[in-house]
Amino acid sequence: LTTKPPSGTRDFLPADIRRREHVVGVVRRVYEQYGYEPLETPAFENIETLLGKYGEEGNKLIFKILRRGEHEASGHADLALRYDLTVPLARVVAQYQNELPKFFKRYQIQPVWRADRPARGRFREFYQCDIDAIGSTSPMVEVELLSAVSDVLETLGFHDFRVLLNHRRVLAGLLQTSGIPGHQHETALVALDKLDKIGESGVTSELATRGVQEFAASRLVETLKKILASGPADQASATNRSRLGTLGTIFASTPYEAAAQELDEIVQMIASTPAANRVFVEPFLARGLSYYTGAIMEIAVPDLAGSLGGGGRYDNLIGMFLGRDVPACGFSLGLERIIVVMTERGMFPGVVANGAADVMISLWSADSRADALTLAGELRRGGLRVDVYPEADKLGKQFKYASSRGFGYVTVVGDDERRAGTVTIKDMTTGHQDSVARALAADHIRQRMTNAREDAR
Amino acid sequence: LTTKPPSGTRDFLPADIRRREHVVGVVRRVYEQYGYEPLETPAFENIETLLGKYGEEGNKLIFKILRRGEHEASGHADLALRYDLTVPLARVVAQYQNELPKFFKRYQIQPVWRADRPARGRFREFYQCDIDAIGSTSPMVEVELLSAVSDVLETLGFHDFRVLLNHRRVLAGLLQTSGIPGHQHETALVALDKLDKIGESGVTSELATRGVQEFAASRLVETLKKILASGPADQASATNRSRLGTLGTIFASTPYEAAAQELDEIVQMIASTPAANRVFVEPFLARGLSYYTGAIMEIAVPDLAGSLGGGGRYDNLIGMFLGRDVPACGFSLGLERIIVVMTERGMFPGVVANGAADVMISLWSADSRADALTLAGELRRGGLRVDVYPEADKLGKQFKYASSRGFGYVTVVGDDERRAGTVTIKDMTTGHQDSVARALAADHIRQRMTNAREDAR
Repeated sequence: LTTKPPSGTRDFLPADIRRREHVVGVVRRVYEQYGYEPLETPAFENIETLLGKYGEEGNKLIFKILRRGEHEASGHADLALRYDLTVPLARVVAQYQNELPKFFKRYQIQPVWRADRPARGRFREFYQCDIDAIGSTSPMVEVELLSAVSDVLETLGFHDFRVLLNHRRVLAGLLQTSGIPGHQHETALVALDKLDKIGESGVTSELATRGVQEFAASRLVETLKKILASGPADQASATNRSRLGTLGTIFASTPYEAAAQELDEIVQMIASTPAANRVFVEPFLARGLSYYTGAIMEIAVPDLAGSLGGGGRYDNLIGMFLGRDVPACGFSLGLERIIVVMTERGMFPGVVANGAADVMISLWSADSRADALTLAGELRRGGLRVDVYPEADKLGKQFKYASSRGFGYVTVVGDDERRAGTVTIKDMTTGHQDSVARALAADHIRQRMTNAREDAR
Repeated sequence: LTTKPPSGTRDFLPADIRRREHVVGVVRRVYEQYGYEPLETPAFENIETLLGKYGEEGNKLIFKILRRGEHEASGHADLALRYDLTVPLARVVAQYQNELPKFFKRYQIQPVWRADRPARGRFREFYQCDIDAIGSTSPMVEVELLSAVSDVLETLGFHDFRVLLNHRRVLAGLLQTSGIPGHQHETALVALDKLDKIGESGVTSELATRGVQEFAASRLVETLKKILASGPADQASATNRSRLGTLGTIFASTPYEAAAQELDEIVQMIASTPAANRVFVEPFLARGLSYYTGAIMEIAVPDLAGSLGGGGRYDNLIGMFLGRDVPACGFSLGLERIIVVMTERGMFPGVVANGAADVMISLWSADSRADALTLAGELRRGGLRVDVYPEADKLGKQFKYASSRGFGYVTVVGDDERRAGTVTIKDMTTGHQDSVARALAADHIRQRMTNAREDAR
C-alpha cells in the first residue's frame, strides 16, 4: 500500500499550511476592504455544467466521477470535479438571481482539479483565489479589480510586479486590420501569445505553420513592433500613452476604436488607485480561455516564467446558464505560484516558522498529571499556546523534545514547587530558569516572549 | 442546463460562509491553544488507500474517479474522494514518519464526500473538523482531546452539552461476561448502540433478531440496567463514580479490568480541565467505525437527535499503512450540525449579519470616477470596507441600493464638495447627513460606527 499522495497532489504539513494561511489571510482581508463577499461552491458539479466550457483540451482535463450504486459498473460518469471557479460562479449567478444583489462582487478561495500531466510547479490539485464583479459593463469594474489585486500583492510585500493589460477586441482588430480572416483568429492568437518567449521571428514562423498567409503575418508583426517600440517600456504612463496613441491611429474609424478607447479609460482611472504605475498595455497578451470578451489582464514578476494571476471580462458566459447575458469581469490569483515566489525570496515573516506551542508542560510523575492539566488550563486562559508532554519521563528527554519542536518555554512543577505554589519556567532559547508564583506564570512567559521579540529587532 | 448544485451538495452564499468562518475561527484558535498543528491532504486518494477501511457499507459510499486519458472509456476508477480525515492522516503519518514529531498532534478542517442518499441534514459534501494525537498510549491524550473539544463548544456558546464516554474493551467485556461469543459482538453492538432510542425491550428483541441467544441478551440488558441505574444521571462525578464502581465489580479479576481502570483514570483527570462535569460514562455507547480499539466518545446536546461529534482511540489503523502499530486517538466535530444548532438557537453574534461594506461611494457623473476611486482608496487606508457604485446614476437609486445591501454609510462628492475639499456622508440607518473635510472622512465614519455599536448595547 503506497503512502504517497496521488500523483500531482500534495500533503500540506503544518509549515506549508501556515504559509498558505498567511497569504490567504491577506487576500481575504484586502478583498473584504473592497466590498467583495465570500462564496463557496461544491467540489464537484453535474458533468454537463463543466463540459464544453473550457475548449476541447479542457474537456480532457476534467476529472470525472463514476455514477454510484448499480450504475457504477457501467462506467458512466455523472459528476466532475471543479476545473475553475468561474463556471461554478456563472451557475450560481443564474441559480440565485433573485437573491443576489444587482452588482454582485464575490471572492472565492478553493482548490480546483485538472488531470494535467504533473510537472515541476504544475499540480492536479491547486488553489485559486478569484474575485469577480457581476452586473456592470463599466470599466470601473476592471479598475477596482486591478486595484484590489495590486493591493493584495503590495500587502504581501511584492514591489516589482507588472499588470499586463489588453483587450480581446483590440486583438481582433489587430488581426483583422492585418488581413487575417476571422476563422484564423483563434489559432493566430496562440502564436501571438508567445511573443515575449519566442520573439518576432518565432511568432512569424509559427503563424506560417498555423496556416496564416505570409503577408498578413508579417503585417501583424510589423504593427506589433510599431506599437511596442513607442515609449520607454519601464514607465507605465508614458508607455501606455504612446501605445494607445498608436492603437488609436491604427483603429481610427474602424469598429475597433471603442475597444482601444476602453483601454484608455481603464489606464486613466488606474492612476487614482494603488495599481498606478503598475499597468502596462501589452498588445500581444492573449490569454487562453475562450470565454473572455473584453479587457484581459495578467500579473508578471521578473523571476517567474508564468504569471501570478490573470483575468478579464466575460460578458456571455453567464448567459449560457441564464438564457440572457449578464456582464461580468474577474481575476484569479495563483496561490501556489505566489507561495513559491515568496518562499524563494524569503518573504514570509518569522511568525510562520514558529513552533506549535509557546510552552510545554513537562510531566514529573503519573501522580502529577491532574496538576499538569490544571497548569495547562491556567496558561491557556492566560493567552498562551500550551502543549502537555503526555507521559511521565526523564526531564532531560522532555527538554530535548521541547527544543526539537521549537517550544520556547518548559514548565517544571516538582514536589517542592507544588508545596511552595510556584512553577519553574525554563527559557529554551537562553537556558535561563526562573521560579515564579503559579498565578504569575502566564504573565511571566508572555513578558519574556515580548522582550525576546524586541531584542530580535 | 440545470443551475442547481449537484444533489446532496450546497452552494454557500456570503452569509453562510460568514457563519462557517465564525465557527472555524473559534475551532482553529482553541486547537492552536492546545498545541495542535494544521494539516491538509488532497481531496482524492489512490482508491486502494480508502477501500476496505470503512466496512462494506462504507465502500459503497465512496465516490470513485475515472482513470484519465485513453482509459476513461474502460470505466476503471483509480482515485476516490476523501471519505473522512482519519484514513488520510494514517497515510500521512506513515509517509512522513521521519519528519513528524514523536507526539504529532494535528487539526484538519476540510470537506469529505459520501455518496449517501441525501436527506434533511445529510449531505454528500460536508466539513469535518478533526483533532488527533499520534504516538502515545497515555490516557492524558484522551483527556486533552476532550478538554479541547469542550473548550471549543464553550467558546462558541454551548453550555448544555454532554460528553458520553465508553471503551471498546468495556463493551467487549460486557458482551463476553453476558455470554455472547466473540463472533456475535459486532452485530450485538449495533443493537446495543440503540438503547437510548428503542429502550431495553427494543434492544432485547433486536438482539434476538440478530441471533443472540435469549439468556445472553437478557443478561446483557440486566447488567446495563444495573450500571445505568446507579447514581443520579445529572451529576457527572457521582454518576461516574457509581457506574465505574459497578463496572469494577463486574470485571473484577477478568481481562477487562484494565479497560474500566482506564476509563476511571480519564474521568479523574477530566476534573482538572474545562470538560469537568461534562463527561458521563455511558456503557451502551458503541460508535460505528470499526477501527476503534480503546476509549470512545461522543458529544450530545438535548435538541439534536444525532451527535455534534465523536471520536476515540484507534491504535491499529496506522499499522495498516506503516507495518507497525502506532497509538492514536482522535475526535471529529461535525461542523454542519454545530451550525444548524447555533442557527436554530440564535447563537451567531451580530457581526455575521453585517453588510458587505461599511461605506459606499456614490457616483455623481462619469467625470468624477477618478475622484471616487481616490476617495475609496483613502477610506480603505483608513480601515474601512468600501464599495464603489460602478455606474453614474440617479442619487436616489444609489441610496436605495446601499440600503438594500446593508451598507451603513454613503459618501456624496458633488461639484460644491469637490471645490470645498469636503465630502457629504449620509448615515443610512438614521438618514443624518454631515459635511466633513476629506482628510477626516474615515475617522468620522469610524467614530459614528463605534457610537452606533455602543448605542446598540
